[in-house]
Amino acid sequence: MSAALDSLTNPEAINPSSLVVRFGPDKPLMLDCGVALTPFQIAYQTYGTLNADKSNALLICHALTGDQHVANDHPLTKKSGWWLNMIGPGKVFDTDRFFIICSNVVGACMGTTGPASPHPKGEGVWALDFPVVTIRDMVRAQAMLIDHLGIETLFCVAGGSMGGMQVLQWAASYPDRVFAAMPIATAPKHSAQNIAFHEVGRQAIMADPLWKAGHYIEAGVRPEKGLAVARMAAHITYLSEPALHRKFGRKLQDRDAPTFSFDADFEVESYLRYQGRSFVERFDANSYLYLTRAMDYFDLAADYDGVLARAFKGTKTRFCVVSFTSDWLFPTSDSRAVVHALNAAGASVSFVEVETDKGHDAFLLDEPVLTATMNGFINSAARAHGLPGARA
Amino acid sequence: MSAALDSLTNPEAINPSSLVVRFGPDKPLMLDCGVALTPFQIAYQTYGTLNADKSNALLICHALTGDQHVANDHPLTKKSGWWLNMIGPGKVFDTDRFFIICSNVVGACMGTTGPASPHPKGEGVWALDFPVVTIRDMVRAQAMLIDHLGIETLFCVAGGSMGGMQVLQWAASYPDRVFAAMPIATAPKHSAQNIAFHEVGRQAIMADPLWKAGHYIEAGVRPEKGLAVARMAAHITYLSEPALHRKFGRKLQDRDAPTFSFDADFEVESYLRYQGRSFVERFDANSYLYLTRAMDYFDLAADYDGVLARAFKGTKTRFCVVSFTSDWLFPTSDSRAVVHALNAAGASVSFVEVETDKGHDAFLLDEPVLTATMNGFINSAARAHGLPGARA
Repeated sequence: MSAALDSLTNPEAINPSSLVVRFGPDKPLMLDCGVALTPFQIAYQTYGTLNADKSNALLICHALTGDQHVANDHPLTKKSGWWLNMIGPGKVFDTDRFFIICSNVVGACMGTTGPASPHPKGEGVWALDFPVVTIRDMVRAQAMLIDHLGIETLFCVAGGSMGGMQVLQWAASYPDRVFAAMPIATAPKHSAQNIAFHEVGRQAIMADPLWKAGHYIEAGVRPEKGLAVARMAAHITYLSEPALHRKFGRKLQDRDAPTFSFDADFEVESYLRYQGRSFVERFDANSYLYLTRAMDYFDLAADYDGVLARAFKGTKTRFCVVSFTSDWLFPTSDSRAVVHALNAAGASVSFVEVETDKGHDAFLLDEPVLTATMNGFINSAARAHGLPGARA
Repeated sequence: MSAALDSLTNPEAINPSSLVVRFGPDKPLMLDCGVALTPFQIAYQTYGTLNADKSNALLICHALTGDQHVANDHPLTKKSGWWLNMIGPGKVFDTDRFFIICSNVVGACMGTTGPASPHPKGEGVWALDFPVVTIRDMVRAQAMLIDHLGIETLFCVAGGSMGGMQVLQWAASYPDRVFAAMPIATAPKHSAQNIAFHEVGRQAIMADPLWKAGHYIEAGVRPEKGLAVARMAAHITYLSEPALHRKFGRKLQDRDAPTFSFDADFEVESYLRYQGRSFVERFDANSYLYLTRAMDYFDLAADYDGVLARAFKGTKTRFCVVSFTSDWLFPTSDSRAVVHALNAAGASVSFVEVETDKGHDAFLLDEPVLTATMNGFINSAARAHGLPGARA
């Protein structure tokens, strides 16, 4: 069955080129919606070496359209890992000192069980029969992986955007297993505006007749147009107006005058169309529905009587919260809410708002202040955790 | 032919219930793209009475999704006119004192010639054979209407958003015909971010297979899903994040807990879906392509060697520029650029930035400071123009 499906869908979804841990019926993933998900597998990558006392493990949580290929070439696009600038010998996440783990989240499409995985009760894939998952479910799945690897405590959990939500959830759900936490460009709950943008993306996908009520894989088609529109709308929100102005302004694409047509006259149109086209090569439309939904549902305080500080009550985890001045998707006010709650809980927290015009996507880019902030925090935490310091 | 098309498309597009002026082959609309558009008709509404010396005419320019039904019930939706709060006896645009004109812009779908009008060389409608129009073309068409009405000078030209672009173009193209100008929540050129959002909307429409390369009317279908997605994405940009938070926050729609599904769990989703659904009842998808394109192309300074002040050189028009603090689509910086250019040109200009959390759409709403600003400006201009003042 898998082989037949492989030929229809992204083969990485079922038989990924990553490391994979498969959990049998004795170890289902217990989901917030009440479903016990089984069979269940997690695809993950690691970099560096786990030390003898298993104290140098660092978990990286990926964002909505990220995956576990954080520091290696992507098996589908052949592009560099999405946080390669941060991971490697001597870098912030120093592979000479740390054992770095990144797993594909539940609901995604790069090898961890999701809507593109084989349906346990049929010939096709889960599609929309897949249960709706939450950020907490993603973190529960990661905890199963960490257990599987025999790791009790993570030296650090770090991530941006949806990855930052997972960092916050890790600190709340497993305070004793997280020594240091670095939530970047994230929020303790998804805002109405962000839910609205996600809903536009979902409606764009569902409006595509090739979506076929979710059953496009069995039909051998893909709702590429709808998914591309969803990506284009989202991509605007990842950038800032000043950055778009600086990069593109009103510059025309390979022409001297407007064509009085609907061609991509402006560079920014051509850029957006490219973003849409390239996204559909590597991402599953149903996964996009599920992961946006998980973000929409995220409201950490709601699990603690509406009081965010209670999520971190008595925590010994040390936090480094980072936001970006031009991020309008997860503005600094969201990070401040986290910092206030951590302060109220008496937690150890540093907070840096990085001055940049690069918008939400700044967490993926070479921002010297971001790199310096992460470096300082990681090295200080490493010393406190009895791990070696950075090379001189 | 028209009768047959009427049954396929919105009948208002061809035989509107508005006043209509039809221009024959001797009076084509000369477009910026070089095409002489003929036959050409303008659908318009008027309110109040033109005085004997024709000095009390006030032209209102509508926004992207507006139309000429500014102060009467809409013939399709039966809803109140979009600026009814501003127009009527004793209101800002006082129908006891002013003769108010609002015409549907060229390229739109409520009776002025556009892509849903009959193709002059065929059986169907223009569709994408319709020439791409500009804001200047809209204003040229309005000037033909004003000529037809025998009006030399407009007492005032006012409008918000795309309407504000037309106001600026009127002042630049016909400085001697505009006594007072009120550009609200607008910009002298469309930004990269705004072009990007428009491109998402256009791609959403074109991705709908019922769009049929523009020939949906002849096929008896409509790309409703694509147009609804375009509207949903745009609608988010018309509001502010604080207003969305205040109105909806994370409130659930008629339920106590999330359903773990893709239903509209959140009120903001339900609201957006409604906005999409209701829009497609009254708007033509191809018109949406053309009017967004006209806005993208708008760059007033480009016609004056890149120097905006030259667009207003020697102007005697008095200006009232208004922006809104929470408008992120046409932020105050855009209005300031207009004000700086007007100052450089030695023009008479007042500028008010209205404090509100209602975002771009604030120009359509009851904002006391907006109303007071417009009232003060109009009454002062009326006195200077020898028109009666407001009732005591």
